[in-house]
Amino acid sequence: MNLPIDLNDAPAWTSRHGSDKDVVVSSRLRFARNISGVPFPLKAEDDVKERVLERVSETLEEWDLQGPFHFVAMDELDSLEKEVIQERRLGSPELTGEALGGLVFGGDESRGFLVNEEDHFRIQALRSGYALAEVREDAQELESALDREFGFASDDEWGYLTSCPTNLGTGMRGSVLLHVPGLIMRDEISRVLKAVANLGLTVRGYYGEGSESQGFYLQLSNQVTLGRSVENLLESLSRVTERIIEKEREARQNLFEGESVEVEDQVHRSFGVLKHARTLGSSEALKCLSRVRLGVDAGLFDGVSLTEIDQLTMTVQPAHLNLSIGERLSSEDRDAYRARVIRKRFEDDEDEETSGSGSTERVETERSDD
Amino acid sequence: MNLPIDLNDAPAWTSRHGSDKDVVVSSRLRFARNISGVPFPLKAEDDVKERVLERVSETLEEWDLQGPFHFVAMDELDSLEKEVIQERRLGSPELTGEALGGLVFGGDESRGFLVNEEDHFRIQALRSGYALAEVREDAQELESALDREFGFASDDEWGYLTSCPTNLGTGMRGSVLLHVPGLIMRDEISRVLKAVANLGLTVRGYYGEGSESQGFYLQLSNQVTLGRSVENLLESLSRVTERIIEKEREARQNLFEGESVEVEDQVHRSFGVLKHARTLGSSEALKCLSRVRLGVDAGLFDGVSLTEIDQLTMTVQPAHLNLSIGERLSSEDRDAYRARVIRKRFEDDEDEETSGSGSTERVETERSDD
Repeated sequence: MNLPIDLNDAPAWTSRHGSDKDVVVSSRLRFARNISGVPFPLKAEDDVKERVLERVSETLEEWDLQGPFHFVAMDELDSLEKEVIQERRLGSPELTGEALGGLVFGGDESRGFLVNEEDHFRIQALRSGYALAEVREDAQELESALDREFGFASDDEWGYLTSCPTNLGTGMRGSVLLHVPGLIMRDEISRVLKAVANLGLTVRGYYGEGSESQGFYLQLSNQVTLGRSVENLLESLSRVTERIIEKEREARQNLFEGESVEVEDQVHRSFGVLKHARTLGSSEALKCLSRVRLGVDAGLFDGVSLTEIDQLTMTVQPAHLNLSIGERLSSEDRDAYRARVIRKRFEDDEDEETSGSGSTERVETERSDD
Repeated sequence: MNLPIDLNDAPAWTSRHGSDKDVVVSSRLRFARNISGVPFPLKAEDDVKERVLERVSETLEEWDLQGPFHFVAMDELDSLEKEVIQERRLGSPELTGEALGGLVFGGDESRGFLVNEEDHFRIQALRSGYALAEVREDAQELESALDREFGFASDDEWGYLTSCPTNLGTGMRGSVLLHVPGLIMRDEISRVLKAVANLGLTVRGYYGEGSESQGFYLQLSNQVTLGRSVENLLESLSRVTERIIEKEREARQNLFEGESVEVEDQVHRSFGVLKHARTLGSSEALKCLSRVRLGVDAGLFDGVSLTEIDQLTMTVQPAHLNLSIGERLSSEDRDAYRARVIRKRFEDDEDEETSGSGSTERVETERSDD
């Protein structure tokens, strides 16, 4: 394996608790940037892209940003590793589909940049919880360092130039991954989403663009990048995020006051499925983990933290499971293995009991058909 | 409460292990008998029935059958107690609906007789597991004692006389309660049932006549009572029962060999529901207990016995729950209480772990909305 990542654990940044973790799973921000005077990737010949990759690689060797940065060229990775990159939110399908693409990321995977995706650079930062200001700062620092090194293409009128006009200007996209079981279960989500659309923001499900919302997760991000400042764009996004956090908390309170038996039943049954199932598809696992997440926040499970749920949700995705086994499993085998990993994690926990260390438990990677 | 029964426990006879308990939950046999020279209940005036009840009560006082017998007059019981009698398979709706009905039963509820139901006497015996010969002996002993005391109506040509012609002759109905998840899950049950119908036997679901088969349970009994001897009728019933036992075992083996992940998944998920649900209807509880029963037999749960599953299946029926609380609960409260009783029972058990005493754990009877 060429990916310097421990697949049995979620990225280290997921365990650093941001604020408002009950509703905000994580925050992310990226800047789209291109090197001045060099053809943009979508129009560039291979030798141009190769040269960009080389320059990045050389730069990293002499760079003194805090902490080590890994450089991974896409052509060194097999298809499973590429899928894992997507599952960990490190890279997009556009990046992994690009033979001359590259990925740079810090040890905890919280900062890095994509090379030769749609733009020369997609500079990104990720944090657990609600931390838009922090990810902005993290990404900004990296952006400045790269700008000093490479010099970004920009225009007095348009701002930063990008391959796709939807990124022109700031080239910034901020996003928050929200967990909103209250709003969804109480059927209040459509009203909220309508308001969001009018504010130049977009909403997607857990698995990214185009996918349905699954398991009570929503990703909220700015649609507009042009004609407004980064501050102003983040302010809109923050205002809406904070409003949703507030509404979601109200909805949860109403949920547990009004229909407590039904809701608790759903939550505990989901925990029962996670603890006992012998085969578990991605979608059902996501839904159950999402319900249990609601229960953890409501204090129904003492031994499990929101962070652990989020980490498990990430590490039981298909490519993570395949790669931790070391081969591409059939979907039957994968679902059985997923059930085993999750069961193992919850084995010693029980509702009403306190236990649980802070980390995702290691699971042996040998297959078995128990 | 006028019913001398401990409702938190299943009847004592359920914990005396009969043979072939993997497939046969219990065996039952009853004789329909009437007192010679006294109008049969369906045609009798109230004073006649009162006199029969009195004579039974007097007889019991001076009787020296092994062990104590309880006498309960139906007009002393409230509606909940009457429902419990049915749920424990002690009496029929026809009995509990009869103001002048009476019920006599031994301490462990394994032997007794109904007074003034459709016939003056319905003498019955129950045992755990496959024990048709034994229940016949038990019932026969009681029948002889009653015959000596009261003198039964019979006819040289017709045999014992009964209110309904379907009971004429032997007045005997033998039945076995079968657990056949293998045959049902493998879709082999209809073939078996077709054969059964041709042999003068009938099949019903768990909850008795007219009800659908629920949770993999079937009750098999002789339809014919006339023109053949008790021995001969029981021989037919036994032959079919033994054939079904054999077929069911084959089916289970094939089930676990052929589709083990799916079947184990179903079994463990059902266990998960029992352990975690906060509200559980009768029907779902029955289905889940039934699947777990299959798992217990397959060795998937070390800490639980077949007997315990059978006992729990009996004691979480609606009237049992209501009466153990001491009031008629709303169905919402009852389902929540059922979930709590079952959860409590399985609290300390876990798959793959050995534990478990032999008895159904006592559950506090106070209500709570935890």
